[in-house]
Amino acid sequence: MDISLVVIGDELLIGQVIDTNSGDIARMVAPAGWAVRQVRTVHDDAAAIRAAIEDSLAESDIVVTTGGLGPTKDDITKATLREIFGGEMRRDEGVAVHIRDVFARRGLHMNALTESQAMVPDSCRVIPNALGTAPVMWFERDGKVLVSMPGVPFETRYAFANEVLPRLLERFGERCVVEHRTLVVVGITESDLAERISDWEDSLPAGLHLAYLPHAGYIRLRLDCEGGNEESVHLILDEAVQWLVDSLGEHVLATEDATPEQLLMNELNERRLTFGCAESCTGGNIAHRMTMLPGVSEVFMGGVVSYSNGVKESMLGVSGSTLAAFGAVSEQVAGEMAEGILRTLGVDCAVATSGIAGPGGGAAEKPVGMVCMAFAVKSETAVRTFRFPGDRSRVIDRASTVAFIEMVKFLRKH
Amino acid sequence: MDISLVVIGDELLIGQVIDTNSGDIARMVAPAGWAVRQVRTVHDDAAAIRAAIEDSLAESDIVVTTGGLGPTKDDITKATLREIFGGEMRRDEGVAVHIRDVFARRGLHMNALTESQAMVPDSCRVIPNALGTAPVMWFERDGKVLVSMPGVPFETRYAFANEVLPRLLERFGERCVVEHRTLVVVGITESDLAERISDWEDSLPAGLHLAYLPHAGYIRLRLDCEGGNEESVHLILDEAVQWLVDSLGEHVLATEDATPEQLLMNELNERRLTFGCAESCTGGNIAHRMTMLPGVSEVFMGGVVSYSNGVKESMLGVSGSTLAAFGAVSEQVAGEMAEGILRTLGVDCAVATSGIAGPGGGAAEKPVGMVCMAFAVKSETAVRTFRFPGDRSRVIDRASTVAFIEMVKFLRKH
Repeated sequence: MDISLVVIGDELLIGQVIDTNSGDIARMVAPAGWAVRQVRTVHDDAAAIRAAIEDSLAESDIVVTTGGLGPTKDDITKATLREIFGGEMRRDEGVAVHIRDVFARRGLHMNALTESQAMVPDSCRVIPNALGTAPVMWFERDGKVLVSMPGVPFETRYAFANEVLPRLLERFGERCVVEHRTLVVVGITESDLAERISDWEDSLPAGLHLAYLPHAGYIRLRLDCEGGNEESVHLILDEAVQWLVDSLGEHVLATEDATPEQLLMNELNERRLTFGCAESCTGGNIAHRMTMLPGVSEVFMGGVVSYSNGVKESMLGVSGSTLAAFGAVSEQVAGEMAEGILRTLGVDCAVATSGIAGPGGGAAEKPVGMVCMAFAVKSETAVRTFRFPGDRSRVIDRASTVAFIEMVKFLRKH
Repeated sequence: MDISLVVIGDELLIGQVIDTNSGDIARMVAPAGWAVRQVRTVHDDAAAIRAAIEDSLAESDIVVTTGGLGPTKDDITKATLREIFGGEMRRDEGVAVHIRDVFARRGLHMNALTESQAMVPDSCRVIPNALGTAPVMWFERDGKVLVSMPGVPFETRYAFANEVLPRLLERFGERCVVEHRTLVVVGITESDLAERISDWEDSLPAGLHLAYLPHAGYIRLRLDCEGGNEESVHLILDEAVQWLVDSLGEHVLATEDATPEQLLMNELNERRLTFGCAESCTGGNIAHRMTMLPGVSEVFMGGVVSYSNGVKESMLGVSGSTLAAFGAVSEQVAGEMAEGILRTLGVDCAVATSGIAGPGGGAAEKPVGMVCMAFAVKSETAVRTFRFPGDRSRVIDRASTVAFIEMVKFLRKH
């Protein structure tokens, strides 16, 4: 089953907000073998909304719109939907009661604008939006369904998973078995990888599709397989994964779809090791990405962001003479930072970064993008220097990613 | 001038990659008074690409496509463009030389697949893509222009700003004066804000448009004004901003378009204060967001991520008896964390967070989403407790944002 999405809102087309709802919906429908066919992003403009909805209804049986449902004057989606599907505006008592509940729970004042959110076209069925005040609306025409959802990502994610998708599955049924597998590949460029598996890729069995998903520092290889039954699909995927693992060897960091920080957390959990970090140029991003993972407090004890040299000395015990002799961005200082945090926190393993994220601070022998890293367990500290391309945010992001990947590889050797 | 965008790639429609190119392009064309009219996101599928391009060419004089230009087999945009605009494939020697340079600079191996990127339809003009290997292609038909760009965000951002936009401006000229102003508004819901300025909003002068851009923890109010000359546009915007500042009082945190962390950095810079942070539940996100700002090393010295209680005691000097009496998530512990980091780093001001980000760890009196914060200067420490809705990532993000906002407000009182 194909779904077309219409994403509504000026803020998306002037570049002030990024649409994450489309991706969320795509990921939620994939297990049913459904796919998003096209996304049309349009302004809060009646003619544009109308045209995008009509084009979407022409190509897909299911259309989902997001956004344009706020209480403010710039949101006109509801009126436009009434024009398309007909009917009159009516007050929905259930929605009104729910809005009052949400406001009471948040301890907020309710006003006439908020009350107006309880008005819906009588041509739609109202679907609960547990986390927000804008009602989700279900319209039907010529056997096709349009669902209008709010633009606020967590409201849409929750309501789509719990209220909308179950109703759509009941209405349109499932098509066939679709499964996915993902490999995390490191240390090879997309071109070299593609060349290496080119012959194999040309001879993939019917129903099996390969996609390259390059990220800063690693590539995800995604295998999608569609077939008549679960057993045959699993067999095809198992064989494909095995072939890739055999052919790519140590370039395969994992055969599960996980971020580098998730792979590190898994490695730490399996081996019951505690972890800490000492960050200079990554500035807290390693700690931040670790602590975004639920349950990480079992293995992650904490870290120090030693942005100034004084902090490197006072909190991590880096020696003044090492700093003077080699400079803050050096393998020697990174090594002492890692050993310092290992000692101070009393953890089993640690990573440290020191580098030049830019735009300022670069020099001929230590250019912007140069990052020294150290990886420590009690018995050994390893150091490495990398050069990352791009601007400040790319250097920070890439250095953090590589720190996770190299930490996993370092731990697997110990 | 309207621009329609066609964003190409399976990875975008299965929810594995989020499109940031559209927003980047929208922000870059805005100063010229140009706007993105619609974005169509389609699969790596010749028919879908073709239809989206034809629809875009029908509605706009400028069409920009991104993505689908990689060297791997799933990328078919180039062949589809040749079908639409005609011509034969030819090898572009300039592109071939550039690709060899890029690979040599990165110390990478070059293969036949990479070489194939030098093939372009002879119906296009090649535009340099300094940061990548896929050529940017400029096609014309019936007075309209289509530019095909790569999907890698930093390549597209750079090439659009430096190579494509200047050529488009030369070709299509500018329309009229368009200026924007943004206010950062805090401590009021979108509905209450809308009600409060409703009458004023109804009587806005022609050419002036107001948009509400809600974020977790604050709202950006954006004023767009279009007019015949710079002077009149400035006058209208100045008056509108002044009216909002007078009416909303202390709810206006800033009259510039800046994130909360940028506002904090500006405040620290103006007053020549140094800053540090002690983070428990925000886990490094405050340090990370500070260090993403270029030049922050003048004012940001560093921080401690004290995820475990042991680290709170050993590195921040929080007393064991305070932890035992009030628990880690308490105003007392947050206060001692802020004073500890102030002392240890020797900074002028500091923020500390301790809370329950979830999903685990909540209790009746201390539920998930409860976050205690402390704001310290040498002469005073203030503490506050907040309750944030949503899942782990929302609690962490919102708590960090509120920490920046409250720190700015705290500093302005001292």
